[in-house]
Amino acid sequence: MIKKNDILTADALIKNYIHRTPVLTNQSLNQILQTKLFFKCENFQKVGAFKIRGATNAVFSLSQEEMKNGVATHSSGNHAAALTLAAKWRKIPARVVMPKTSPQVKINAVKNYGADITFCEPNQQAREAALDKIVRDTHAKFIHPYNNEKIIAGQSTAALELLQDHNDLDFLIAPVGGGGLISGTALTCHYFFPKIKVIGAEPKRADDAYRSMQENRIVPSENPQTIADGLLTSLGNLTFPIIKEKVARIFTAEEASIIQAMRYVWERMKIIIEPSSAVPLAIILENKKFFQNKKIGIIISGGNVELGNLPFEISK
Amino acid sequence: MIKKNDILTADALIKNYIHRTPVLTNQSLNQILQTKLFFKCENFQKVGAFKIRGATNAVFSLSQEEMKNGVATHSSGNHAAALTLAAKWRKIPARVVMPKTSPQVKINAVKNYGADITFCEPNQQAREAALDKIVRDTHAKFIHPYNNEKIIAGQSTAALELLQDHNDLDFLIAPVGGGGLISGTALTCHYFFPKIKVIGAEPKRADDAYRSMQENRIVPSENPQTIADGLLTSLGNLTFPIIKEKVARIFTAEEASIIQAMRYVWERMKIIIEPSSAVPLAIILENKKFFQNKKIGIIISGGNVELGNLPFEISK
Repeated sequence: MIKKNDILTADALIKNYIHRTPVLTNQSLNQILQTKLFFKCENFQKVGAFKIRGATNAVFSLSQEEMKNGVATHSSGNHAAALTLAAKWRKIPARVVMPKTSPQVKINAVKNYGADITFCEPNQQAREAALDKIVRDTHAKFIHPYNNEKIIAGQSTAALELLQDHNDLDFLIAPVGGGGLISGTALTCHYFFPKIKVIGAEPKRADDAYRSMQENRIVPSENPQTIADGLLTSLGNLTFPIIKEKVARIFTAEEASIIQAMRYVWERMKIIIEPSSAVPLAIILENKKFFQNKKIGIIISGGNVELGNLPFEISK
Repeated sequence: MIKKNDILTADALIKNYIHRTPVLTNQSLNQILQTKLFFKCENFQKVGAFKIRGATNAVFSLSQEEMKNGVATHSSGNHAAALTLAAKWRKIPARVVMPKTSPQVKINAVKNYGADITFCEPNQQAREAALDKIVRDTHAKFIHPYNNEKIIAGQSTAALELLQDHNDLDFLIAPVGGGGLISGTALTCHYFFPKIKVIGAEPKRADDAYRSMQENRIVPSENPQTIADGLLTSLGNLTFPIIKEKVARIFTAEEASIIQAMRYVWERMKIIIEPSSAVPLAIILENKKFFQNKKIGIIISGGNVELGNLPFEISK
């Protein structure tokens, strides 16, 4: 069970390694959507994503004994880059399993940080099998991308910083992949700002968390086809119970809304966010009445995008 | 002649209408280029470009008599949007001539701000002919996009703000189109920070300012073909003498360097800048030795880009 103090400890532990990212607002988007939006910009974070928070907390919480053979993980990109950088800071090796369909820009980033990469088929079973083999062979410490208490406590610090800057919100929205960010976000609100409702945003084409909530069990994500490449994984046995208890609701968004939301942020805010990060704004676009006149925090999870393969059509 | 006090007056006059944009730094780019770069982010400015500074100063400096028939201008986009917004603030109409080849995203922006647009062929003569006709017909006050002292004084405030934040620079680089931004920048350094060398950055394919400096006369820009669509115009009889006297040097950059520089900023800084704004970084890429270990301010002039028509190739 992750306690209030675990979040504060994570916050203190990672502070000197990561950026305190800015919270941006945008008059034009507020006007279009008739809301007040506060964007916590983890796209400006080290490695270009919030994942460095959890990875740094996890790696710096390891004992000398635990870390002596390095760390290992599986990830579609951002957690892999984050774990590799945190490992580099602690001067230990990092071994990562990446789906071979990961965007080349993310593969390059992981390579550049110095990871030893193994590629696998893009599904959960292949990831886990490849990872198991590496752990058996090298005795590296496995740091799960989300189903790990230190990771969740680390991710919770993004919401903590946002709410230290702006605490009078009605809603706080984060995207849902494996559930590390949303469960950390929900814990931060639960312990420090219990009046704020936490909402999860998921692509309709990867709606396993939405269905898990409906069916009250972990519904696995099976071969999801969405542009939001950071949100393909299934919930874990640590993240699901937190989400079930502490997330008010999960909304899903169509692919077209995700692309529209991403374009709005690029064009109006002039910042680069990855498709996964556009899902919270996409659910607002699809549910304007529900969110109207509300003060809403949004966690922009990352900004790692293949610029040579964007989904935008030419303006008319 | 623009005096020190004209810059301070412009600064005071426009302060309540425009954003004080942030100055960003980036460790990764500093490491790649072995420099210390300070980016004044006018892409986050109202209308997405520094042009609102000059336009606001010019429009708010008009007397009731001068502004009674509204304002008019010719522009490839950003000055048109800026003049229209400033006119809207003063509740007067704006008429603009735009080359029919302007990016649709810029045309849409100008339309959305409420301008009356006339399209023309993409050359200086066609622009001026269309504008002359509008002024004859409507008696609107012509606000030239750069060859106007109020415009230049307004543009000079971007450098003023940057240098208020970081004044120990070796160089300050701005892109050169018609010369409004670079001459304003040079005047700010001349009056307030005379030790800082001002450098102009121009596409090699639109190197009329470079050639004007060489030949000591205004060499007109003739049918330039560059991705930097904000830098197509010729210098004016107000901007050229300031540039000649107060700009230390003009460097030119190849198209490939401009695209590379733009990609660096998008990928590493996660911010959207338009091609014209990438030219200062492009000249650093092409002249690494010259700029090595220097502290360099860069004015990011704007962030208005057609997202459906980007120059990036897929990563390898």
